[in-house]
Amino acid sequence: MSEYDVLCIGNAIVDIIARAEDDFLHDNQIIKGAMNLIDAERAELLYERMGPAVEASGGSAGNTAAGIASLGGRAAYFGKVCDDHLGAIYRHDICAQGVAFDTAPLPQTPPTARSMIFVTPDGERSMNTYLGACVELGPEDIEEDKVAASQVTYFEGYLWDPPRAKHAIRKAAEIAHAHGRQMSMTLSDPFCVDRYRDEFLDLMRSGAVDIVFANEDEVKSLYQTADFSTACEAMRADCRLAIVTRSEKGSIAMSKTETASVIAHEIDNLVDTTGAGDLYAAGFLYGYTAGRSLEDCANLGSLAAAVVIQQIGPRPQVSLRQSAIDAGLVKG
Amino acid sequence: MSEYDVLCIGNAIVDIIARAEDDFLHDNQIIKGAMNLIDAERAELLYERMGPAVEASGGSAGNTAAGIASLGGRAAYFGKVCDDHLGAIYRHDICAQGVAFDTAPLPQTPPTARSMIFVTPDGERSMNTYLGACVELGPEDIEEDKVAASQVTYFEGYLWDPPRAKHAIRKAAEIAHAHGRQMSMTLSDPFCVDRYRDEFLDLMRSGAVDIVFANEDEVKSLYQTADFSTACEAMRADCRLAIVTRSEKGSIAMSKTETASVIAHEIDNLVDTTGAGDLYAAGFLYGYTAGRSLEDCANLGSLAAAVVIQQIGPRPQVSLRQSAIDAGLVKG
Repeated sequence: MSEYDVLCIGNAIVDIIARAEDDFLHDNQIIKGAMNLIDAERAELLYERMGPAVEASGGSAGNTAAGIASLGGRAAYFGKVCDDHLGAIYRHDICAQGVAFDTAPLPQTPPTARSMIFVTPDGERSMNTYLGACVELGPEDIEEDKVAASQVTYFEGYLWDPPRAKHAIRKAAEIAHAHGRQMSMTLSDPFCVDRYRDEFLDLMRSGAVDIVFANEDEVKSLYQTADFSTACEAMRADCRLAIVTRSEKGSIAMSKTETASVIAHEIDNLVDTTGAGDLYAAGFLYGYTAGRSLEDCANLGSLAAAVVIQQIGPRPQVSLRQSAIDAGLVKG
Repeated sequence: MSEYDVLCIGNAIVDIIARAEDDFLHDNQIIKGAMNLIDAERAELLYERMGPAVEASGGSAGNTAAGIASLGGRAAYFGKVCDDHLGAIYRHDICAQGVAFDTAPLPQTPPTARSMIFVTPDGERSMNTYLGACVELGPEDIEEDKVAASQVTYFEGYLWDPPRAKHAIRKAAEIAHAHGRQMSMTLSDPFCVDRYRDEFLDLMRSGAVDIVFANEDEVKSLYQTADFSTACEAMRADCRLAIVTRSEKGSIAMSKTETASVIAHEIDNLVDTTGAGDLYAAGFLYGYTAGRSLEDCANLGSLAAAVVIQQIGPRPQVSLRQSAIDAGLVKG
């Protein structure tokens, strides 16, 4: 028996979201579609230049945890906020979604992390993240009982950016595997893969991670090849279960012996891609921990991603469970 | 010559927006569709019970100022925030929209005002407002040069809730009229009308206010009649220009000698009515200060309202100017 379906670990970030033209990205040297790490000074500068914004709790793995809870799954989360106003908002939103969240906040500084997200007319999001309190996440924040009680512990590759989170993840992996549980990660971002390629490959090849999510750019970056099939087969060989998302071209889930390819869920209107990959992972892992087929898991992932890209902000504003029932993917 | 088309004065509020079922409103004794005033203790209690939320700058007259700027008009704003994180967000958003905003913030407490807005499945919003720093807005916050330089000074009836703002408005009206400018107000909310009926009627009948916006419920409340036509004719007699909005039934603008009735702008999908009245006023006043016909003004109001009710949050996330050009209401 398990108390949680999925435990998610990540950088706890409040998103500040505004629309912008492509020229704005160019003029401010923001890499389009990527997660750009920034310091406090640049955060202030960019905020001055940013248009009117809305705020919403985010963070890649936090979005995944919220998505799993919205589907009716049992989710927990580890992530570091500061005991400030944005931290209170972050805590409220993830707890109100039904996710167990008890990581101790920092009492003083640095402040809660924020990411300024510029959404261009094509719906693509370009993130500018000041990590703030996230730099303090460490092994002491790993609640052993929750790791032991979770079917899958999932984390974001972005956690290799702050200094001590990787030690927290290695500790979590040891606990999880000692209890017969599985570890899962997302490669997060092609530039993040580029920063930590050898370490990510080591996590996969050493068996520290069982289930790996990547998009097309990330898997190509991981294996430094322009050939998608080559990259996919290499990834299949390197982990127990490899899942690759391809935006409107659908997704592929590959175990050693099985391949499930599904098409993308149809959408009416692309508004903001923020959270697409996070919600795909939520749908997939919800299905996976419920014992569903790889094809069902991939379809649940596609549905959850489709919901979140038709709204502003990274977490679903409607019940994903209802959406999944309406789509015939979950029984009502 | 005027430096500003419209100066807006109101309670500076950050909105905290979540979806909720009708049962939630009932269980928590929230009057549906209304602005419910709450104290700090109840604010804390409701936030605990609230689902995952998003944050966006709001405040009725603030939304109107943002809408006028989004249409390409020249707007200014007076409103009181605290020098805290929400106050910084408020200042950023209204300034980034191109609105002139220089009201001095409170250095300490009370904190910046917030309104917890519950959006029910029918798109209706029910607001729960903790006024915080807004209670300190007073005559000393009226910047005489901006009032003198604005074609229209517009304020919200909600300003009769905090203790000193009404004195600020009476001061603004004197300055405006001394400079040959016009004063405009919105009746804000039928319960607000009920609280301050005699004072609002006095503002209109004494000539302190020239242009008055109301919705159907508010004008009926003002004249304590269930008969819409009776209420409208009474309102026409009591001010220079009366504008009554009727949601999907359109709107009516009435001077002493002229009546313009327009139908509502068609929408695809009602998401959240927050800001509908505020944006109607923005569109109307943008047209009015540009010398357009009453019918054009009302159509511009309908368009701006239609844009904002098809998104979450009270301020348009797309350019209203572009929307107005696309609709043939403004030349590109």
